[in-house]
Amino acid sequence: MEGQHVPRGYLFSVAAAGIRYQGRSDMALIHSEREATVAATFTTNRVKAAPVICDMKRVRSGKGRTIVVNSGNANACTGDRGLRDAEAICREVAVRLDVPERSVLIASTGVIGTPLPMERVMRGVDGLIRSLGKAGPWDVARAMMTTDSFPKVVSRRGGSGATEFTVTGIAKGAGMISPEMATMLCFILTDLAVGRTVLKAALAEAVAKTFNLTTVDGEMSTNDTVIAMANGAAGNRPPAGGSPLLRRLKAMLLEVTDELSRMIARDGEGATRLLIVKVRGARSQRDARRAALSVAESPLVKTAVHGGDPNWGRIMAALGHSGAALREHSVEIAINGVKVVKAGLGTEREREASEAMAGEEVVIDIDLKRGGYSERVYSCDLTEEYVRINARYRT
Amino acid sequence: MEGQHVPRGYLFSVAAAGIRYQGRSDMALIHSEREATVAATFTTNRVKAAPVICDMKRVRSGKGRTIVVNSGNANACTGDRGLRDAEAICREVAVRLDVPERSVLIASTGVIGTPLPMERVMRGVDGLIRSLGKAGPWDVARAMMTTDSFPKVVSRRGGSGATEFTVTGIAKGAGMISPEMATMLCFILTDLAVGRTVLKAALAEAVAKTFNLTTVDGEMSTNDTVIAMANGAAGNRPPAGGSPLLRRLKAMLLEVTDELSRMIARDGEGATRLLIVKVRGARSQRDARRAALSVAESPLVKTAVHGGDPNWGRIMAALGHSGAALREHSVEIAINGVKVVKAGLGTEREREASEAMAGEEVVIDIDLKRGGYSERVYSCDLTEEYVRINARYRT
Repeated sequence: MEGQHVPRGYLFSVAAAGIRYQGRSDMALIHSEREATVAATFTTNRVKAAPVICDMKRVRSGKGRTIVVNSGNANACTGDRGLRDAEAICREVAVRLDVPERSVLIASTGVIGTPLPMERVMRGVDGLIRSLGKAGPWDVARAMMTTDSFPKVVSRRGGSGATEFTVTGIAKGAGMISPEMATMLCFILTDLAVGRTVLKAALAEAVAKTFNLTTVDGEMSTNDTVIAMANGAAGNRPPAGGSPLLRRLKAMLLEVTDELSRMIARDGEGATRLLIVKVRGARSQRDARRAALSVAESPLVKTAVHGGDPNWGRIMAALGHSGAALREHSVEIAINGVKVVKAGLGTEREREASEAMAGEEVVIDIDLKRGGYSERVYSCDLTEEYVRINARYRT
Repeated sequence: MEGQHVPRGYLFSVAAAGIRYQGRSDMALIHSEREATVAATFTTNRVKAAPVICDMKRVRSGKGRTIVVNSGNANACTGDRGLRDAEAICREVAVRLDVPERSVLIASTGVIGTPLPMERVMRGVDGLIRSLGKAGPWDVARAMMTTDSFPKVVSRRGGSGATEFTVTGIAKGAGMISPEMATMLCFILTDLAVGRTVLKAALAEAVAKTFNLTTVDGEMSTNDTVIAMANGAAGNRPPAGGSPLLRRLKAMLLEVTDELSRMIARDGEGATRLLIVKVRGARSQRDARRAALSVAESPLVKTAVHGGDPNWGRIMAALGHSGAALREHSVEIAINGVKVVKAGLGTEREREASEAMAGEEVVIDIDLKRGGYSERVYSCDLTEEYVRINARYRT
């Protein structure tokens, strides 16, 4: 896995600043050797962390070079001091790398409400600058981890015509994952040259289809950030709308964000199973989405999935609760390919379905038979371990 | 507790039909000696259980005499057969008691998707009729229990002028509790004479202020039913709008439903603590409500409450996620009286707050300082036991 392609023209480093965790890296730097096009999406939570507020201004230019990230402390609910701290970090990075301050972006994840230990952070920044180029995407992914149990990196290499390029996504997830992007950070790097408007639209589309349809606990974080950088090291001319190269980029972006979404759901706090909820036959896209989310977020469905129980009654209740148009007597439900509900009634194939649920992946297929719209949501089971992790996160 | 007042003119019985549970009562009958005024509210889930569909028609007349209830099987997602079964039970009760069939209501709670074992149910009905008058409200409450850990009965006796009367509420709750009434059944009986329109309005108001602001896991059941009966055994003239007697009835109804709501939240599946979320200073009633619900339903807040962790950052994140208008820098939060957030920032009184959280009740007081609206929601902590109960409910 760690031997995947890396886009050209990016340097990486990590440092162990001891912000909260000991004996591991907790800061990372991603630096493009040349100015890159930048696009980003952020949490829609009204309480936004300092790094999010800081970045929202900076990405307006559509240009950037560097991302500095830390784990262990979210720098959220830290008021003016938090904002000053975030800006001071960016400034220090900019000065040391001799790039404009506005070209540095920042992301943080971890505990809310505690100011950053700036002395340690600044020593960390020093370490990042000194070791730039000595790490790779996997090291960055490891430095970003909080309650994640594994680092998340996905790369795709592809091309169109004479242009070969790579898209690499580096993410962290785990808890507080919810539509509209929850405590997740994701940095997507490509060496393709892409115009600002095109990159922004392609990112928005990929996020809408993947991260925003991924849920662990319905929570939405104050820090969610997805940043895409395109530095043009591939030497291509920026692709025009509708060109084969742009289509290729979009497809690769979607593959990378889709695979990262699956990894984030699978690594939901305490999760033992990936849950994929597919709804089709909905009367509208909105209905498909809310029906799928209602099932994917239901604690009763998620605990049943944990217990390997094909409890379709809970799925029916969650569908009825979703607000989506449905007729009870036309609903069909299959779990891992075993049809457990036909015409709204149980088929008495629960033993078979239970056996089919033995693996690490549970797919719930729902057909509402009311129209032509479909949606798919990634989620995970709800376990005792989720409660243990979150009852003891700080104490 | 069991020596509480009971409204005049009602007879009760219970039976052990063995529908799902062995060695305990699982059916109950409530019967008014005279025709009573009836009002009811039901689940808003689009998937409605057979007894709900059955009752929704019957309560339109505003009159009724009898409620038959069973636990262990919800008779939900059972199609036409379920509806025929529910009607057959009502018919049998009506014939045996010699009352009009339309005056019998029915409620069920338990597993979804399995037809009722009608032979056993009908033997249970026979037992109910034979033993009518040999039980009391507490016996009925016990027969209704599913994952409840204690029976729930609240009585208030009061009066106005020459009229003395009693209001008794009998409820079951536990899991699938959510606003708009989740798997809960509640029967409210009074011996006051009350007109149909007046009873309906008083019940709707009490439910809106109590049960509909009670959440255990955000789930909404297919079976939720609250039925109020007023049989007039107190001999009064039905109170007019605005009369002291009606005000007294409304106040007592509110006390009974409020106390039952607290009991239901406290008895949330696996819960060890009652969580009360109070929001004030909201810009609108809707904002107050959604802010309070967002905090009360947040798995991260609920696990922190379980761990005795005054994790105000998660409360801030849930507020920001709620959609309610807020300015981060004006939010104030107190936990069990200890102010942990002032002007949007931590006050470093977390040790004190943690000590204040040692008991069985946690009150989170939030002031948004944006307006004059307030709301209060009952909830509970989220525990490993909740997961255990629901991962193993059927299997």
